[in-house]
Amino acid sequence: MRINSKPYHTIWLSEKNPSVVQVIDQRKLPFVFEILDLKTPEDCFHAIRNMAVRGAPLIGVTAAYGMYLALFEFRGDNLKNYLHEKADFLKSSRPTAVNLAYAVDVMLEFMLQNLPNSNLQKIALAKVEELKFREISFSEKIGEFGLNIIEEIYRKNKKPVNILTHCNAGWLACIDWGTATAPVYKAHHKGIPVHVWVDETRPRNQGARLTAFELGQEGVPHTVIADNTGGHLMQHGMVDLVIVGSDRTTFTGDVANKIGTYLKALAAKDNGVPFYVALPSSTFDWQMEDGIVEIPIEERDASEVAQMEGWDGNAIQQVRLIPENSPAANYGFDVTPARLVTGLITERGICKANKESILKLFPEKNRK
Amino acid sequence: MRINSKPYHTIWLSEKNPSVVQVIDQRKLPFVFEILDLKTPEDCFHAIRNMAVRGAPLIGVTAAYGMYLALFEFRGDNLKNYLHEKADFLKSSRPTAVNLAYAVDVMLEFMLQNLPNSNLQKIALAKVEELKFREISFSEKIGEFGLNIIEEIYRKNKKPVNILTHCNAGWLACIDWGTATAPVYKAHHKGIPVHVWVDETRPRNQGARLTAFELGQEGVPHTVIADNTGGHLMQHGMVDLVIVGSDRTTFTGDVANKIGTYLKALAAKDNGVPFYVALPSSTFDWQMEDGIVEIPIEERDASEVAQMEGWDGNAIQQVRLIPENSPAANYGFDVTPARLVTGLITERGICKANKESILKLFPEKNRK
Repeated sequence: MRINSKPYHTIWLSEKNPSVVQVIDQRKLPFVFEILDLKTPEDCFHAIRNMAVRGAPLIGVTAAYGMYLALFEFRGDNLKNYLHEKADFLKSSRPTAVNLAYAVDVMLEFMLQNLPNSNLQKIALAKVEELKFREISFSEKIGEFGLNIIEEIYRKNKKPVNILTHCNAGWLACIDWGTATAPVYKAHHKGIPVHVWVDETRPRNQGARLTAFELGQEGVPHTVIADNTGGHLMQHGMVDLVIVGSDRTTFTGDVANKIGTYLKALAAKDNGVPFYVALPSSTFDWQMEDGIVEIPIEERDASEVAQMEGWDGNAIQQVRLIPENSPAANYGFDVTPARLVTGLITERGICKANKESILKLFPEKNRK
Repeated sequence: MRINSKPYHTIWLSEKNPSVVQVIDQRKLPFVFEILDLKTPEDCFHAIRNMAVRGAPLIGVTAAYGMYLALFEFRGDNLKNYLHEKADFLKSSRPTAVNLAYAVDVMLEFMLQNLPNSNLQKIALAKVEELKFREISFSEKIGEFGLNIIEEIYRKNKKPVNILTHCNAGWLACIDWGTATAPVYKAHHKGIPVHVWVDETRPRNQGARLTAFELGQEGVPHTVIADNTGGHLMQHGMVDLVIVGSDRTTFTGDVANKIGTYLKALAAKDNGVPFYVALPSSTFDWQMEDGIVEIPIEERDASEVAQMEGWDGNAIQQVRLIPENSPAANYGFDVTPARLVTGLITERGICKANKESILKLFPEKNRK
């Protein structure tokens, strides 16, 4: 998608140096547009940990590039052990997104299978790029399948389709197109009138900062609202459809996503508004049955709640929001139980949020 | 309650000048503690409109003082018309809280009944103070009735009672004690261990700024959380009880309160957590039957969503949170349908959120 009218991906290999990966520094958007160089697995780890890159698909690809970059650093005599170490290290950068472990494991397995090989850097790079372009193609397919849902509502209502989304499951969270936003961009490009209610998404404001930014850059009509607002809008018929992303979805249909998603799912259910989750299959957890009990929920630093970052007119500025001696807590995700989810939009099509329907789309995962 | 260890009310007549009313400027808390002088009905109007004072009970008493202050300004020959005009003016300061119209009408009627009277200022003041001290006594009674609920949970669980609240229905929203916080203060003073989850309450952050401040000043353990967090906490058994305030509650039990309250009520219902609304009877609307359809919801300036105010280390500072060209919307309240409310805590006792139970507590309102 476009930034300042120029098409970008969120991550790419430097044209000048094959041992440098470049990403958009998402901590500074929408105020400053800056490219960040990642030269080592440690750079990738910190970019993920500090949320310079974020979003389940992008985290996965960044970690995969981290495995590739590791090859430039290797100086010892046991490459196998070294790669295992780097894989564990990269996987520890954030706990909730399952894509992270998935992408790292794919890279690790691939590299180990190809040892020894004097062209390892080249073929590892090809593998990363395969993962990257697979993510793009998955996003596009999610967009096409989700487009059908939007088109159907438009055919019925004959007025702009109001879509609510939470956090940023946009192209900035992916490589291109996004997950939750992919159907929106597909509809917008096709000339179907859409309007997006953008949840601010405290504490880190990914909605206000990233989703509003990318929708605006692509020309999609949208309005930023406080996270508290969605229920009221749904009560008054102002939301036709909710689409969110996911950081991990169990094969039984429980959806871990940014904290607050569960509240919107409850409101959607209460008001008969369809609630869809858009996700590439790399986001599925094929082991966990009970998302609420089993999915680890990251607790982040309380300062993200106590403080807020914004533009003071000249620079990005932190301001404190709470009394000096008040504690704060910061849970990063919540789990929306499958019973509240109308459907899952995947690269293979749309299914219901239950084991039978999910395994019908992904029969190769059926362990019986 | 206390600020810097000294007991305060939120509004009082200046000791030095009987034509000056003083209030705590709540726009600057918790960063700066400042007293604001109100000398005219216009001052009262703006203090309410600009939210220097806020909270349904405090708004009502401030407007009542406004009617009293009007008497110092009167220069014409038709006092009746003048008082009617001032009453309409004061009532127009904010649309959602029913206490505002109630308090102004009580004052207007009282003053008209006492015309002509050379002591009108004195008896009007006595009437305002009657309203003010009645609010305090109502808050205290709400506290005593709500205390029973907290005590019962404590007797059962034998561990600190976790209470979630949204916005500030604290003593700062009232004159003293608060509505939602009154039971908390009563429990804390009695030595029952309580801990309050304080919803930040975007866009104006009354939770982070006011509730956290007043609980901290009174020594009550608490933790500030993003508005998105309550559902996750409830799913994991970390909330024993929700208590919120109200800006208007229909006699059928529908509750208008700060935007986002409805989402917490849904989560409480979904997780079997009791959801109580604490309100003085002045908050009841005895005309409206369907809160979602009938209660007017204030739309405030979008800049409250687009910007955020905090402490930059030296001063209160505004920072912009969203892209320059993105629009924002700002709905101030939502309506929680009666079916999600466990009970209403009033100055006369606790009732269910339905017409029969409410009218049983307030039989004089039964129009048949």
